[in-house]
Amino acid sequence: MDERLKKQLEFILEIDKEKNVFRQTHLSGHGRNENDAEHAWHMAIMTFLLSEYSNEPIDVGKTMLMCLIHDIVEIDAGDTYAYDEEGKKTQAKREAKAKERLFSMLPQDQGDRLKEIFEEFEKGSTPEARFAKAMDNLQPLILNDSNGGGDWMEHGVRAEQVMERQSGTRYGSEKLFAITRDIIQKHIDKGSLK
Amino acid sequence: MDERLKKQLEFILEIDKEKNVFRQTHLSGHGRNENDAEHAWHMAIMTFLLSEYSNEPIDVGKTMLMCLIHDIVEIDAGDTYAYDEEGKKTQAKREAKAKERLFSMLPQDQGDRLKEIFEEFEKGSTPEARFAKAMDNLQPLILNDSNGGGDWMEHGVRAEQVMERQSGTRYGSEKLFAITRDIIQKHIDKGSLK
Repeated sequence: MDERLKKQLEFILEIDKEKNVFRQTHLSGHGRNENDAEHAWHMAIMTFLLSEYSNEPIDVGKTMLMCLIHDIVEIDAGDTYAYDEEGKKTQAKREAKAKERLFSMLPQDQGDRLKEIFEEFEKGSTPEARFAKAMDNLQPLILNDSNGGGDWMEHGVRAEQVMERQSGTRYGSEKLFAITRDIIQKHIDKGSLK
Repeated sequence: MDERLKKQLEFILEIDKEKNVFRQTHLSGHGRNENDAEHAWHMAIMTFLLSEYSNEPIDVGKTMLMCLIHDIVEIDAGDTYAYDEEGKKTQAKREAKAKERLFSMLPQDQGDRLKEIFEEFEKGSTPEARFAKAMDNLQPLILNDSNGGGDWMEHGVRAEQVMERQSGTRYGSEKLFAITRDIIQKHIDKGSLK
């Protein structure tokens, strides 16, 4: 087997580990915790279905790929819960190290491309990145809403924390941000958000 | 909320159930059984990385979407193991019914589009469909190979059954089919395939 294909197959096997990185979000129907691969799969399909609500035109295929790979660094760095203030202090350093190790497993052109797309996502520097971030916010919100806000109650999360986290959605989609606000307000009204 | 967005969000919540459809394949490192959403996520990233080996030029974004949605029907129809001859007799009927119910939850234009892409995959009628099918074969092969062929041993699967199942890969990629043959031969040699 040539070196290029060998590297690609080794990376493909390596990222299988993302299926073992669990998040704080629970699956609908009060299910188990969700993992990063499932979350990314869901976000990519959402991108296809909801792209019409993007504030700016986006390249749907590229945004889907961005969603699919945006959490790969968590194979090494672990999942940092959106409301874990301690964990967030070291998150950037842990993820930068993981990014170097993981993407350098690939042939250089592909490793560089995925790193570039990952960094674009992190910075939110393009319409695609802003829309992907909106999906990253909306996907767990939909699941948590379907479970009566259980994930927030479990961690004692406050409404202003949720609003701060979710506020970035407006840069990707004003339309989806309006829905986000409605969902948060509903949970404040019924007491599942303090 | 308008009717169109409401339907899209209901479908998005509904497909969360795909994360509970488990397959016979086990995750690398002798892990637990894999589910359909994880399998689809993996296939979509593989499509991006391996598309250079497609026999014919493909639209990568469309092929990724095809991979992401190709197992949605199993939410209703369940997973049919590739070597379950009894289950395969009723598979087409179960999946056709599921296809109608699930895709008709969406606004008609999007439901029709996903149904079309799903049917294209089923028929293997385009370069994209043939490459997606190659990914559908190769992804579990890589995991099973990494686990010493354990999935085959568990079910007493014979080499000729694996070759028959995997033979379709050649229509998507001759190059990846050569790798497939090498992996199968290795497991015949070491006795993990009868």
